[in-house]
Amino acid sequence: MPGMTDIEELEALNEAFYHAFESGDLDKMSEIWIEDTEDRVAMCVHPGWAMLSGRAGVLRSWALFMANTTYIQFVLTDVRTMLCGDVAVVTCTEDVLVPAGADEVGFAAGLVVASNTFIRTEAGWRLWMHHGSPILQAEDEVEADDHER
Amino acid sequence: MPGMTDIEELEALNEAFYHAFESGDLDKMSEIWIEDTEDRVAMCVHPGWAMLSGRAGVLRSWALFMANTTYIQFVLTDVRTMLCGDVAVVTCTEDVLVPAGADEVGFAAGLVVASNTFIRTEAGWRLWMHHGSPILQAEDEVEADDHER
Repeated sequence: MPGMTDIEELEALNEAFYHAFESGDLDKMSEIWIEDTEDRVAMCVHPGWAMLSGRAGVLRSWALFMANTTYIQFVLTDVRTMLCGDVAVVTCTEDVLVPAGADEVGFAAGLVVASNTFIRTEAGWRLWMHHGSPILQAEDEVEADDHER
Repeated sequence: MPGMTDIEELEALNEAFYHAFESGDLDKMSEIWIEDTEDRVAMCVHPGWAMLSGRAGVLRSWALFMANTTYIQFVLTDVRTMLCGDVAVVTCTEDVLVPAGADEVGFAAGLVVASNTFIRTEAGWRLWMHHGSPILQAEDEVEADDHER
């Protein structure tokens, strides 16, 4: 994007990635991910999941999540962007807010640590790999966290 | 290493990384990780942990694990290596074997999915980021797995 540094552009794209999930925008999500080539394919680890390889499987998983999510909200903290040539890694903590279970009232929250690896292509930066994993806190810490909301 | 392709070299280095942990070799572990620069630092996510940033903190965590681990063994499957310029990502599934708890006999096993990102430096490939996360299986699958060992 004109007038933006690589880091500004990458952090805007990283936000757009989470916003695409929040708003159930599969077109935008598709646009953000790289196209597979012979040597290099899209890769994605959802928290608690094994690795998904290949654009088709990765986008199918996002479509599935979007279809099964009534509401989700991400607040990103600890965002850090580092470059090495045409590869960039954006790391962040996702504070994820979803509706509480059927027998509960309000919202449930969880922390996920993510590393998002982007590649510079002719069309701009694209997401090569998303790796998200649960931060397993002590239960009393999670409860203290919930009371603050 | 002479005579080896990048992919062979990276997969050997990836094995050496796990072997350094298995054998409690902190010198080898230190050699494998990149040096921090102003723009780029070592990053590490252990399964269930938040992100550690910076070589000192990352190596301290490995020293701590090594000091508190009597026995650990990794069997790697689904090893896949992809390059983009001077950056490479090696993804794998770690089948981790550790002694069972104090009141049990034998070994416990767990599955971890890892993405290991390497940078080509003047001294050869070095590890930039390790992201490991638990694969959360259904409990009966884990039990069936244990009986097979």
